[in-house]
Amino acid sequence: MSLDPSQYEQWLSQRKAHRKDLKASVLFPRIESGDRKALSTAITLIESQLTSHQEEAQSLIQACLPLAGRSIRIGITGVPGVGKSTLIESLGKAFIAQGHKVAVMAIDPSSSLQGGSILGDKTRMEDLSQEPNAFIRPSPTQGHLGGVAQHTRESIVLCEAAGFDIILVETVGVGQSETLVHAMVDFFLLLMLPGAGDELQGIKRGIVEMADGILITKAEEENELLAKKAKQYLGNVLGLFHPKASEWEPKIDVVSSYTGKNIDLIPMWLDEYKHRTMANGYFETNRNKQNVSLFEDALNHTIKNYLLNQPKHQTVYQELRDEVTQGQISPYTAVHQLLAKLFPDYTSL
Amino acid sequence: MSLDPSQYEQWLSQRKAHRKDLKASVLFPRIESGDRKALSTAITLIESQLTSHQEEAQSLIQACLPLAGRSIRIGITGVPGVGKSTLIESLGKAFIAQGHKVAVMAIDPSSSLQGGSILGDKTRMEDLSQEPNAFIRPSPTQGHLGGVAQHTRESIVLCEAAGFDIILVETVGVGQSETLVHAMVDFFLLLMLPGAGDELQGIKRGIVEMADGILITKAEEENELLAKKAKQYLGNVLGLFHPKASEWEPKIDVVSSYTGKNIDLIPMWLDEYKHRTMANGYFETNRNKQNVSLFEDALNHTIKNYLLNQPKHQTVYQELRDEVTQGQISPYTAVHQLLAKLFPDYTSL
Repeated sequence: MSLDPSQYEQWLSQRKAHRKDLKASVLFPRIESGDRKALSTAITLIESQLTSHQEEAQSLIQACLPLAGRSIRIGITGVPGVGKSTLIESLGKAFIAQGHKVAVMAIDPSSSLQGGSILGDKTRMEDLSQEPNAFIRPSPTQGHLGGVAQHTRESIVLCEAAGFDIILVETVGVGQSETLVHAMVDFFLLLMLPGAGDELQGIKRGIVEMADGILITKAEEENELLAKKAKQYLGNVLGLFHPKASEWEPKIDVVSSYTGKNIDLIPMWLDEYKHRTMANGYFETNRNKQNVSLFEDALNHTIKNYLLNQPKHQTVYQELRDEVTQGQISPYTAVHQLLAKLFPDYTSL
Repeated sequence: MSLDPSQYEQWLSQRKAHRKDLKASVLFPRIESGDRKALSTAITLIESQLTSHQEEAQSLIQACLPLAGRSIRIGITGVPGVGKSTLIESLGKAFIAQGHKVAVMAIDPSSSLQGGSILGDKTRMEDLSQEPNAFIRPSPTQGHLGGVAQHTRESIVLCEAAGFDIILVETVGVGQSETLVHAMVDFFLLLMLPGAGDELQGIKRGIVEMADGILITKAEEENELLAKKAKQYLGNVLGLFHPKASEWEPKIDVVSSYTGKNIDLIPMWLDEYKHRTMANGYFETNRNKQNVSLFEDALNHTIKNYLLNQPKHQTVYQELRDEVTQGQISPYTAVHQLLAKLFPDYTSL
């Protein structure tokens, strides 16, 4: 039997759709028992575009939710070359030595364009990936950033249900990905190179402002002076910001994944952070807030997508949008005209 | 005839709805000829909640759009007490002396709660309000911030159609109102008190980052040293920011509305800004972008409001939102459940 490529694709996805292991009822007990292979399969299910997979994925997430949440979620960002992978490897091993289970995920804004620049390379984090108490998931290499963020967010639920109590979400210091990661973690860690000068290494100030902790990486002997200078400079910058709603004063220090210097500092920061923000109620309030804003954002996005993806609406939307761009029609008039097309009984202005 | 209050309200709004002057066809030629009274009536129409008024308002805005846009729109912000009104008065008169027509509007986040703290007092800007080439509109004292911003944005179109070529939009340095004002102006001016120390006077850094110009107010003799210090300090802060998309380097100087010192500087900044950003294309690109984001924001907001304000949907929305907040359901599952209720033919996940 010979198939042309599109027939083959179809046959492949039908075959995938009938795979018995891609079922919530099969995967759930295995995830509950901490099975990393099941976890990996489940995340593949989450990332699948097939409707039947999506249905199974949603039931699985729903089943896992009561078991989820008992973790600390840590976002880690920094420019390429700052040493995120090596730090995560050292940090992950330190956590495991303390008896924790560590899951590592990534949101990579470049992956949909370039096939992945972080965690795509399987030879990275070699030591950590061999630990039975570590789970490492590369960044999905397709889909728009919002979709990737949704999948990561859903994967966190599954990892937590599988008993992983340290969740590390890695991203790179460009674009919108930090904001997405910040919106799904408890603690946001920014890595910076030694010798940071005035220009903050191309990191947006808003990202510095989001940080709960800053680590100057590569603080080996030959970089010592530069690292100290960067620490002092960034300490001054942090001093200019307003107190955080969490009442947490961001920490800053130098670190070396190579010599191991100050690696043990990070679990201490996190302990202190968890203790303080659980005591003042911020930890829970923040997670509730994150849930609601994810819901509201997804709701806006999904309603609009659903309506505007219907062929009968697409043209009128695009025409109105063009007129608005050119200033030929008021944005508000355009909205009312569009709503009148979408909903026959829409009258109120 | 005696009427109870609700009947009286109804009678009053019916009477208002039949007022002959509240018609687009009557108001448009008068606005076109620069009639300030018509402009004022038209803005009342924009702010009215009556459906018939809203319909007239939308036609009027649509008629005015081809005449609009030939202005420079300037946002002015600063904490209460920084001297916004007195600066606007001096600046407005300076512009009028140069042959310009000046419209002043306000977005006051406190007005819906407290009955207005800026521009509510009619005795303010007394000199400017007597100029035939000035139009001053107080902040609306009701409605949520998004609605007020929409009305201001629509009023700008009418003012421009009436020949006002300098549009000043005042707001106070708290909450979300700056972002709304920033999204509708070409140039964003931040006023600060002399003696600004490390803590930036409660102004969020994001607002300093939005500024195209910063003026240290009250630079009279006794404040000279403090004002100079503030200028130096803020100059350093500005130096830390990344270059703007407009390629414009924010200006900073001291100013006194009392002595008139440096008031003439502001029109020069604006001339230079307009010249540069028109040459590099940013001026137009930015306005087009502002139009589109207003459209997309209003679209999200309006679709959601329309659907969720229907009584049959309200309960399910609220229940799902509560479950999401408590972490009992995944935000994405909740969205799909809600969509399935809103649209009988919704199936895709």
